[in-house]
Amino acid sequence: MNYRFSRRMDALKSSAVRDILKLTQGKEIISFAGGLPAEELFPLEAVREATERVFAGGKHTLQYGLTEGYLPLREQLCERMTAKSMPVDPDQMLLTTGSQQAIDLIARVLTDPGDVVLVENPTYLACLQVFQLYGMRVIPVESDKDGMIVEAAEKLMKEHKPKLVYIVPTFGNPTGRVWSIERRKGLLELSRKYGVPIVEDDPYGDIRFDPKADYPTLFSLEGKADGGSVIYLGSFSKTVAPALRTGWAIGDRSVISMMAKAKQAADLHSSTLDQQTLDQLLRHFPLDDHIRRIATAYGSRMQQMQQLLRQQGWSDVSWVEPQGGMFIWVELPEGLDAEALLRAAVGKGVAFVPGASFFAAEPQRNTARMNFTYTEGERMKLGIERFSEAVNEFMARC
Amino acid sequence: MNYRFSRRMDALKSSAVRDILKLTQGKEIISFAGGLPAEELFPLEAVREATERVFAGGKHTLQYGLTEGYLPLREQLCERMTAKSMPVDPDQMLLTTGSQQAIDLIARVLTDPGDVVLVENPTYLACLQVFQLYGMRVIPVESDKDGMIVEAAEKLMKEHKPKLVYIVPTFGNPTGRVWSIERRKGLLELSRKYGVPIVEDDPYGDIRFDPKADYPTLFSLEGKADGGSVIYLGSFSKTVAPALRTGWAIGDRSVISMMAKAKQAADLHSSTLDQQTLDQLLRHFPLDDHIRRIATAYGSRMQQMQQLLRQQGWSDVSWVEPQGGMFIWVELPEGLDAEALLRAAVGKGVAFVPGASFFAAEPQRNTARMNFTYTEGERMKLGIERFSEAVNEFMARC
Repeated sequence: MNYRFSRRMDALKSSAVRDILKLTQGKEIISFAGGLPAEELFPLEAVREATERVFAGGKHTLQYGLTEGYLPLREQLCERMTAKSMPVDPDQMLLTTGSQQAIDLIARVLTDPGDVVLVENPTYLACLQVFQLYGMRVIPVESDKDGMIVEAAEKLMKEHKPKLVYIVPTFGNPTGRVWSIERRKGLLELSRKYGVPIVEDDPYGDIRFDPKADYPTLFSLEGKADGGSVIYLGSFSKTVAPALRTGWAIGDRSVISMMAKAKQAADLHSSTLDQQTLDQLLRHFPLDDHIRRIATAYGSRMQQMQQLLRQQGWSDVSWVEPQGGMFIWVELPEGLDAEALLRAAVGKGVAFVPGASFFAAEPQRNTARMNFTYTEGERMKLGIERFSEAVNEFMARC
Repeated sequence: MNYRFSRRMDALKSSAVRDILKLTQGKEIISFAGGLPAEELFPLEAVREATERVFAGGKHTLQYGLTEGYLPLREQLCERMTAKSMPVDPDQMLLTTGSQQAIDLIARVLTDPGDVVLVENPTYLACLQVFQLYGMRVIPVESDKDGMIVEAAEKLMKEHKPKLVYIVPTFGNPTGRVWSIERRKGLLELSRKYGVPIVEDDPYGDIRFDPKADYPTLFSLEGKADGGSVIYLGSFSKTVAPALRTGWAIGDRSVISMMAKAKQAADLHSSTLDQQTLDQLLRHFPLDDHIRRIATAYGSRMQQMQQLLRQQGWSDVSWVEPQGGMFIWVELPEGLDAEALLRAAVGKGVAFVPGASFFAAEPQRNTARMNFTYTEGERMKLGIERFSEAVNEFMARC
């Protein structure tokens, strides 16, 4: 039989990057490409102890669970959210298979094909895939190092009446940028004025290098879930471990309950072993201390990578020093195509993600996303040497 | 903000049954409603040991995984499938969050709004929800105790050119029916002739009361994944435990790789802790012996429920004795509305699922799905007494 696929799958751009990265399989490659956390920092022993406690609860722990997610974990997460000025009840929270699933469910319940979504420029690659699959028109809003430019967003809201705005305002992926408080308040105001919900995706917010820095979430500025215009997404993937695949969405209870209906059809519920494990972990493990340890380690790695890049003495390579998160967003010399560079870099044994994929419309091809969390020390040094060799060869050719 | 929801969510029928069953929360209710496995039979100790072995593998076990699923588990599952005359490679298999997610992904990659899907009459409730959400037209095919009537299916294929046929041919939900070999072969032939892929959902196939009984899957009759017309879905929810939320889809590699693309947008990947745990479980735990124990226990419970129902001496209540699975499908006296009966039954402290929800079109309202796996002994006896009280009161009124 020859299978014919749905039109929505045509919309899913095939990824040149994925094809190039496939070439790395089996090779000894130093990768700055993935958004992978540092494995050596995973709290394996605490996770192990947490599962022990789950199993001590008896056989009932292995039964089907609620679509909304394991209630004791939601209750604890609500307390954590409330302590961060995001007051919320378990009825206003849905547990998901990573926060990626929350993006999918939001698109499913709030948009129809042809609807417009506004995003930062550039923005998180995998949100673009979701929006494309739902047949949405993705329009990038002019953005700078302080976030979306509010006037540009307002103009597009008037013109296109978007159904959603999707943002990663704190340590964005790929840029690592942090929105200024003015931009946060500005977008929130627009959202209320034009009735456009904001999806605030915050997987990296806890990974701030300066523990005293304060970047209030848009959800906390809004101050309420019911009737509010912000749907906030959190995740344990960066703070505990990705294998436990647990994220959460909070927002107006009508949206959350509609997302739960959609999730019931999508997969009934996410892993309750994972959810119960995280519940026990939160009860017995000082997670906030652990997050500080990770953030400190990532801050050092970022500094190392930044220093290694500086040492190359390139005059026309630049980046904004990230204050948190997992990525340095590098602007390469004008005219340099980072996809071609990747091909050369992979030949030398190093990988990164060319920036073009993160743009919803016109891509800026001379950009690269460099992950600094997965490698360190001599390995990072060797990786940047290889990267720089590739860049220098390219610059010599230009 | 007032949220406006997508048109696809309008299509999702609100469930009267769910509303009635909500009334049971907090009450002492004996439930024959859920499709819940017997908790006391869960292999908790084996699962615990399996996670220990996973954690012994070191911190890498907590990292991000492949969208396609943990390769060693796919390899083992392929061996199990091949041993059951379903030869398949890891590239022809996708691990999912329960087999429910596989249904969602299949609809996503193979259908467009308005496309027709053929289903048994009655059929699995949650597949109807998925198909409705994707804007599909669901057309039930006349079916009897031996499965779909092939001539009726052919007539509808000619008329509607469906994109899919969805079936549960072995111990179907809700009816418990087993398709005859002729019907299996007949549908397979139609599927090839008209180019309509078959989704063979098989969560209960292993739960056969007679260990010597042989019900070949349509996938095994087809004998191949690539170029074949059957996409087969399996699940560990009934044989190991639902909390581990792991199912799998096998089929033509073009379909599987398209489903993986869609899954990447949907949730990146399912829980790898669960997948690694199941991998270790399969290596060290005699799963097939365990499945025999479950099937034997469920067979006894089915006999107990059947006997209790017979003892009521109803002349116009009937059912076909199931050969496996988890449900007895009861036909109540004509004119009796099982939804009204449920309301009365819940008042007496017992619940079941009225059959109407399982029909894609004209419902047969005098039907009830009774689960026999979750309760046993005195509790089952008390439950059937309460049920029978409700039925008798209704029959007296008619």
